[in-house]
Amino acid sequence: MSADIEVRLRALEDHAEIQRLAARFSDAVNERDANAFGELWAGDGAVWEIGEPLPLRGEGRDGIVSMLESLFGVEHYFMQMTHSGVISVDGDRATARFAIREHGRGENTFYDNLAVYEDELVRGPAGWRFMRRSYSYRFLDQSPFAGTAFPVRPR
Amino acid sequence: MSADIEVRLRALEDHAEIQRLAARFSDAVNERDANAFGELWAGDGAVWEIGEPLPLRGEGRDGIVSMLESLFGVEHYFMQMTHSGVISVDGDRATARFAIREHGRGENTFYDNLAVYEDELVRGPAGWRFMRRSYSYRFLDQSPFAGTAFPVRPR
Amino acid sequence: MSADIEVRLRALEDHAEIQRLAARFSDAVNERDANAFGELWAGDGAVWEIGEPLPLRGEGRDGIVSMLESLFGVEHYFMQMTHSGVISVDGDRATARFAIREHGRGENTFYDNLAVYEDELVRGPAGWRFMRRSYSYRFLDQSPFAGTAFPVRPR
Repeated sequence: MSADIEVRLRALEDHAEIQRLAARFSDAVNERDANAFGELWAGDGAVWEIGEPLPLRGEGRDGIVSMLESLFGVEHYFMQMTHSGVISVDGDRATARFAIREHGRGENTFYDNLAVYEDELVRGPAGWRFMRRSYSYRFLDQSPFAGTAFPVRPR
Repeated sequence: MSADIEVRLRALEDHAEIQRLAARFSDAVNERDANAFGELWAGDGAVWEIGEPLPLRGEGRDGIVSMLESLFGVEHYFMQMTHSGVISVDGDRATARFAIREHGRGENTFYDNLAVYEDELVRGPAGWRFMRRSYSYRFLDQSPFAGTAFPVRPR
Repeated sequence: MSADIEVRLRALEDHAEIQRLAARFSDAVNERDANAFGELWAGDGAVWEIGEPLPLRGEGRDGIVSMLESLFGVEHYFMQMTHSGVISVDGDRATARFAIREHGRGENTFYDNLAVYEDELVRGPAGWRFMRRSYSYRFLDQSPFAGTAFPVRPR
């Protein structure tokens, strides 16, 4: 294979895999699948941060999955939407930034927000993983909204 | 061409084409283009399902296009937004799941929802097509909202 | 390299680059980065149009960047979300259409809308650039909403 083809294929694959990782993140959250969520992270050094005004922080795959499970306990209904994002790859490291909407309901709580995920990624033997995701709120509305939530169907 | 390049190109193309099919679905709906919508489906065996609490079902390309046209009759204004999705390809079959928002207005009706499309796809001679799309509501708000809708410009 | 591989790689790259250009547009707007925004346009002949009922028009890279800066002056908080889009490439020209949501607040103004960007693109020596983006509102709500906006962190 010529070097040029390899470089071009790899560039396409890197961007596609990082897009897919961000998509799998939203999908795991929306399907309430903590196992699938855990597979997206680099391992012990990984950090998942949610910024002000609702700060939370998980570290390492186990800490991150525990944080997700505690959020599942609070939010009876939750949907996360990943919009377009920008990705910058430098060898086996990358950074990315995605525009996000989240919408959820807890016991007596309401949650509708727009934010950006600022990401650091590493390529390991099994492909790209998140080393750090930092959620930076741009808009947050916690006032009550109407409408009905429906449970995720068991699979 | 080496087998390796072919496999890698094909994998990239499969994912890009299925992403594009989902994008063309939203675009055809938003542009009110029933012909473009009909081209996205596998043919006689295709099924388009909308789940509870507003269940609807169309079968075969003609049945599916008729269902779309009856929805166009109800919703004077309608926008569908496809967010990120996850895709799993197995030869000439694939499954996918996309996060969706829909927003519309009818005569005296209002419609704002978040949902997932659960998809089964097949690869035919003309490329990937939907064999089944099942719309699973996660949140539905039918209470009135403010704002003004604008008609789609004729092309 | 065989002609076939080149054609297939190029097709994948073209679509990925145009998707990325639309993503960079939203990102530059959301990060309030006028320089990054200016790099997305073809140059002197480029046109950025926002349609009725809030029409605006900028021409040439300088005119377009000035228009963005005046919008930054009006909207203290602003988020643009790019959803899926359809792309059609014809040599060094392309057209595209993306579904968009924008959400913002000014001094005493509120702004929440759904729209489509209709795009014309050209491939120059530095890659794909916008020759024209025309924003076509489909839904616009300027009534007050609750919630808190957070400033973009300086980088």
